[in-house]
Parts: sequence; C-alpha cells; structure tokens
Amino acid sequence: MSGAAPFDATPTGVFDATPTGVFDAVDVIRAKRDGNALSDAQIEWVIDAYTRGDVAHEQMSALLMAILLRGMSRAEIARWTHAMIESGDRLSFDGLGRPTVDKHSTGGVGDKITLPLAPLVAACGAAVPQLSGRGLGHTGGTLDKLEAIPGWRAALTLEEIREQLRGLGAVICAATDRLAPADRLLYALRDVTGTVESIPLIASSIMSKKIAEGTGALVLDVKVGSGAFMKDLEDARTLARTMVDLGTDAGVTTVALVTDMSSPLGLTAGNALEVRESLEVLAGGGPADVVELTVALAREMLAAAGMDGPDPADKLRDGSAMDAWRRMIAAQGGDPDAPLPTARETHVVPAPADGVLVGLDAYAVGVAAWRLGAGRARREDAVQAGAGVELHAKPGTPVRAGEPLMTLHTDTPERFARALEALEGAVSVAPEGDRPAGGPVVLDRFAADGSPAA
Amino acid sequence: MSGAAPFDATPTGVFDATPTGVFDAVDVIRAKRDGNALSDAQIEWVIDAYTRGDVAHEQMSALLMAILLRGMSRAEIARWTHAMIESGDRLSFDGLGRPTVDKHSTGGVGDKITLPLAPLVAACGAAVPQLSGRGLGHTGGTLDKLEAIPGWRAALTLEEIREQLRGLGAVICAATDRLAPADRLLYALRDVTGTVESIPLIASSIMSKKIAEGTGALVLDVKVGSGAFMKDLEDARTLARTMVDLGTDAGVTTVALVTDMSSPLGLTAGNALEVRESLEVLAGGGPADVVELTVALAREMLAAAGMDGPDPADKLRDGSAMDAWRRMIAAQGGDPDAPLPTARETHVVPAPADGVLVGLDAYAVGVAAWRLGAGRARREDAVQAGAGVELHAKPGTPVRAGEPLMTLHTDTPERFARALEALEGAVSVAPEGDRPAGGPVVLDRFAADGSPAA
Repeated sequence: MSGAAPFDATPTGVFDATPTGVFDAVDVIRAKRDGNALSDAQIEWVIDAYTRGDVAHEQMSALLMAILLRGMSRAEIARWTHAMIESGDRLSFDGLGRPTVDKHSTGGVGDKITLPLAPLVAACGAAVPQLSGRGLGHTGGTLDKLEAIPGWRAALTLEEIREQLRGLGAVICAATDRLAPADRLLYALRDVTGTVESIPLIASSIMSKKIAEGTGALVLDVKVGSGAFMKDLEDARTLARTMVDLGTDAGVTTVALVTDMSSPLGLTAGNALEVRESLEVLAGGGPADVVELTVALAREMLAAAGMDGPDPADKLRDGSAMDAWRRMIAAQGGDPDAPLPTARETHVVPAPADGVLVGLDAYAVGVAAWRLGAGRARREDAVQAGAGVELHAKPGTPVRAGEPLMTLHTDTPERFARALEALEGAVSVAPEGDRPAGGPVVLDRFAADGSPAA
Repeated sequence: MSGAAPFDATPTGVFDATPTGVFDAVDVIRAKRDGNALSDAQIEWVIDAYTRGDVAHEQMSALLMAILLRGMSRAEIARWTHAMIESGDRLSFDGLGRPTVDKHSTGGVGDKITLPLAPLVAACGAAVPQLSGRGLGHTGGTLDKLEAIPGWRAALTLEEIREQLRGLGAVICAATDRLAPADRLLYALRDVTGTVESIPLIASSIMSKKIAEGTGALVLDVKVGSGAFMKDLEDARTLARTMVDLGTDAGVTTVALVTDMSSPLGLTAGNALEVRESLEVLAGGGPADVVELTVALAREMLAAAGMDGPDPADKLRDGSAMDAWRRMIAAQGGDPDAPLPTARETHVVPAPADGVLVGLDAYAVGVAAWRLGAGRARREDAVQAGAGVELHAKPGTPVRAGEPLMTLHTDTPERFARALEALEGAVSVAPEGDRPAGGPVVLDRFAADGSPAA
C-alpha cells in the first residue's frame, strides 16, 4: 500500500478519449454509485483492466464500496463472476471415467468436514477435486489442517491432480495462482477496505474459483451463526440462492445447504485437533453433528453428480472411506500412521456452574483458537499444528461447576490470556430443567430452480 | 497509481492491536458504510493517518464512497473540515489595520468575478486575501486568467502577501502547499474515484482552505446550472447552507449567495478574453450580469467585514477600483498596460435562425473553451492565454440567421472541430414573440442563522 503522494489526476469525461481503453473507470464507478446496472462490457472491462493494473486499487475499492451499498442484479453478478473466471485458466476434468463433484463451505469454527468428506465421496465412486485455501481470520483453512500430518504437501501440479483423481478419486490441494487471479486481487483489496460483507462479491468470489476449477457438480455449505461469515439466516439464504443461480447459469449442477454455525462443529477447533476428530469420523465414530453433516453433504454430492449408488453412511462403517483417506494422504507424501503433533502447553477452562450447557459461542471459540496459534494474523505467518480449543461438552449436555469444559492448546503459553479474553461471555449454563431441544444442523436447502426443496 | 500487485492483507479486527495506531482504517470504513456517525477521534485519526500515508489510498477511497452514499452530519462535517485544516498551517492576517474578507466561487463558465471584485473591495477599504487555484476541467482558474497578463506572477511568500494586503488591500495569488494539505490529497483521490459529488466532501474541501487561510469574513458564490458543479437548485442550497454552517462554527462570518450558471457569465470564457472583460467592468462598463454580480458580492463582502462605507458601484464609476487593480497587478510583476495575448486563429459560429436567443448552455461553452486550449486536461498541461469563446449575444437578445453568434479563439486550429462538437445543441433560438423574461443572477442567500434572508 503506497504512501500519501498525490495523484496525477486525470479529469473525468469530456476532454479526450479515456486513457485506459474502451471505458473510463470513473464512469463505471459513477454508474454503480448512482444505482445503475453495469453493462456486460463495463464489467468485463473493469475486471480485466484491474487485473492488468490499468484500473488503480483506489478506483476498484470505490467501485466495490458502491457495489456493497447499491447491490448487483443476477445478470451483473453472473457477468462479474464470468469476468473473474476469464482472468485466468479454466480447468477441465473430463475423461476421468467418473463424475466430478466438489464441496465448498463458507467457513466455520471446527469445520473439518472436507477431511472425511472427500475420501468418503471418492469411496462411493465420484471424483472430488477439492482445490482449497489457507485460513485467514478466525476460521481455519483446510490446507493448514492437513499440513499437521507429517510429510503431507499441498502443492500439486495439474497432472498430479488429474492422476490422483483418476486413481483415487480424491484430491485436496492448493489452488493454482492461475485460477481466477482477479479474485485473489479483489479478495485482498476487500479485506483492507471494508468491502468484504457484500453478498454479490462473496458469491462471485467463491463461484469464480469453483467454476474455473472445472467441477461438474458442486455442493455448497453456507454457514450461518456467530461463527460464520453470515450471522443472519436471511443473508445466508440469499447467499445460497445467489450461488446456486451462478453455478446453474454456468452449467454446473449446484445445490446449497444452509447449516448452523452458532456453536462449533464437533469438539475441536485447531489443525491437528481437527485431523484427529476427522479420523474418528472415518473410523465410524466421531461427534454426531460432524457425522450428520458429513453424510448429508456426501448424499447431496452423489445426487448432484448423478450417482444413485451406495449410502455414504455405510462407507464410513465399512472402513472404505478410511482406506480412501489413507491412500489420499499417502499420495501427497503424508504418513497416515505418523503420530499427529500436540501442543506443548494446555490450559483447562472449567464449567462456571452446574446445569446444562445452552450456549457455546462459535465465534469466541474460533477467535480463541486463532489467538492460541491455530490461525494466522498475516498471510505470511506460520500456524501452530497443535494449537486450538478442545471442547468437553456440546450445547444441550449437562455440566458440573469446576469440571473441565474446554482445554486450550498452544506451544506459546503467553497466548492463553488473550484466548481467555476471547472466551469471556461465550459460555452459557442454564438450570437443568431448561434444557433446550438441540436444533438441526441443516437449516435449509436450495437447488437449481432457486426454491427450497427440503 | 500502482499496478495490480496483491496486498499484504492485514485481517480486520480481533487478532491483535491495529498496526497503524489508535484506530483501524477498516473499522472506520465499516462504521460509515453501515450508516453510523464517525466519532471526532475517528475523523481526526483517519485524516491524519491518510496524510501521513498510514491509511492507504484504496482505504480512503472506500471511505469516501461510503461518505458519498451515507452522508455526514453537521458535527461530522465540521470535524472533518477541522481535521483537514489541522493537517497544515493556519494563517492569520490580524494586525493589518483593516478587516479581511474573501470570496469563493464554486466555479462557473466565464466566472471572472474575482478579477474586478478583489480590487473593488480593496478600494472600499477592506483587505482581500484571495488565495486561489488553477483550473482543471471546464471551468477556468483565476490564476490561469491573471497569468495572461505579461509579467504577472502567482507565487508570493507569506510576507509578500501580508505586505501587499497592508499596502494595497488586495492580493490574488497561489495558495501555499501548507494550506490544508489533506485536502489536496483528498481532492486528487476523489477526482479519480467517482467521489467528487458529495456535498459534505465539497463543503469541507472549500471551507478547510478558506478557514486555514485566516480570513475574518467570507462570501460564497454557489453556482447552480448546467455550467456549474451543482446542476440542481436544492443541492446548491444544501451546499450553501452547509458551508455557511461550517464557516460560522469556525468563527468566520460567512454568507452564501446561490447564483445562476445556466448560461455563461458575461460574454467571454477564456483567460485573456476574461481579463479584457474584467477591465471593461473596472472601467465602469462591461456586461450587465458581470457588473450586477460583482457589485452584489462586493456589498456582501463589505457587510460581512462589518463595514458600512462606500457603495461599490460608485468605486467602479469613479475609477478607484481600476486604480487598485493596476497597483495589485504591478505589485505582482504584471504590466497593466501591456497588450493582452490574442489567439492566432478564430472561427465564427453563426446564429442558426432568426429570432431571440433563449438558451446558450454554459457547460457546452465551458467545454468548448477548454477544448480550444483555455483549460488543461492534466495538471501538468499548459493553457493557451488567448484561447476561448467570445459570445456576441446573451440569452434574451435577438439574433439573425447567419450573423456571428460566437467567435472561437485558439492557437491550434485543429481544435476547432472538437470545440464545435461540444457546442452541438447548445444554442436555442425561438421566434421573436417568445422572448422569455431574463432571470435574476442571484437566486438565493444564506447567512449565519442558516435561513435565507433575501
């Protein structure tokens, strides 16, 4: 980010032809600012010119703020997404001999679902090209979690990805820089300019990468609740519907589930901690909510891929999902039998009272895990494999004052204080009689016609 | 403006203390984006940090767009203006032995009023510290006009300004870089990011410089009409009221006139052409609208300065305003007797029909003059002293088909075609019987209590 040197201001409009090409950035900004729809040509031009550096960061950030406050139509969002895809390569996994289907989650605390899900769906016969990112913020990144496994590497060539999909049916690896490079630029810009929280921009960011990735079908897990990006059910529904529309318009069979993220998924938040919990699920055990969501998403993925084969729940029970996991980890250099790293220090948080745990705020747990070292503050930071939060109770279960409620894990104990600060007010215990009914994990579903179907 | 390299994104919020000081730029952007008022401390911090280069251009442009779309309260605008003043020096012209009073116009086509006005008000006994800018866009700059006078120089030291005010009572010169430097940065940024058209930002930009300049009283000429920045009377009234509030809150006696800019002021638009017309006014002649507005503004300035002395109209008639002009020009190295530059080429535009001229669009004439060379496309461009448009009729007067309606002046005749394009559709002639009543120049007036008084 540059300093405070003034610009060579180019006046806007009438004097001469615009210096940067067909359009003038200021005209595009003004159009959206004034509440007008951008034309296809304006959108294609501004994304391309920004990616080339002909539209300045400060111009794009003004446009993003105008989009956030003025919105975009379905047609504008589709064209914006298309322009981001066109900024890079579009992969194709045709000819694998099995249908491809991917899953994307908007991110939640303790959301390790990708880890058991990809091998499970592969074990059922589909191919899962899961091109992932790293965590930034209070939700962990799938690659960070898998890197807790000794030897495992995230970077694969396109040929390696294709081979692994053909042979094993599952790959989880880093997305290449050539997938929607405009999105990488825009994402970094949005992060520092207060323009993240726009449904059109969120939807186009996610879908540009997934469509460019070349998957034939896609299941979206849109999280809602304190630990999610979307705090509000209506916003989550709008995001889900917007993404289903985008996928459908691009020829990708797309289904979205809206799922609960008011408390953490499972009992762990942190890299190695979540791998361990995923292994329990693959072994046929694990926390009920993780199993429920894994199986629900696997069923949706298989249906979206056009397969009416085995029931995923059986493939967890019979060990074939675990076999697929072991092959997938080994194919990327990981040792599935190596002991997972553990943190050097732990700190137990006791339950504050007798009663039933009625609230365990997902966001607070996510921030605590992040501060313990499971996440990164800056892109270049390393994460601690062993750091995180382990829960000893889920909402709806009884607790006793003074007995362990959570265990905090870190290599750097000076971080405990800030993690505990994050957890202040995060725990609610009610008298035994007030036990609330546990809510469902899946709250809503959107499919191609745009209307909820279950 | 930098290229398309991605940022080192700093995540927003909870992880660590903000890296740049008391506030986080993203929090400030989000607050305004979500429709909240910014606190005094947030405003002071963001202006200071931006001026120092700690808030990036792309962050400020997002904030400016949020301000444009969400607005600012009177208290926020006052604090924003104050923070811009505090970014630089605040001058003082106390101890001159006469009251200081300045005028600012929001810019119009053919608006040469400052040229006769400053010496006229000086001739009436007040001191006019007119620190001005150059033109950018379709409205000319006062300094560009005066630089048409051989030898005249715009750059004075603060000591020279003070001496000239003490001795002659009038100075028109370039503002120093140390007056509201934050405004210079913000103005350049707004120009390229579609964030110019915000009344809070326009008002604070103008008033920060005028308050920092140290004038004791201020009269604002807020133009409205096609040739003005404000196209709409209600917007012009809001801007006038906002600026009167800002001046009043800062202890500067402030009055604003809202004046008509639907057709050009006087009969000329262009640098030397406008100096020549100003000399006619100073000699007791000149177009009626220029004389009317000059005298109206002079009366307001003298009243705002607390002087109930001579009538400015007398000082135009008796030659004392012209004497003050000659001394003012000579004091800054100019030769008041030197012939003014003329353009090498002229092109006559005939009236299209017999009848009465009912419309002569100010914006079109401004753009034509600009394209002929009177204005600049980029800050570093030179202007042509002789270029511009000379009118042979004002709206409300009769014209005959084929007789000269305007003369275009330029040193570079290849510019005629583009100037003529700008003038297409700018002229309306109606049958003789339809002659409309000429409207008044002054449309509204705002004084310290915020309510129109005449």
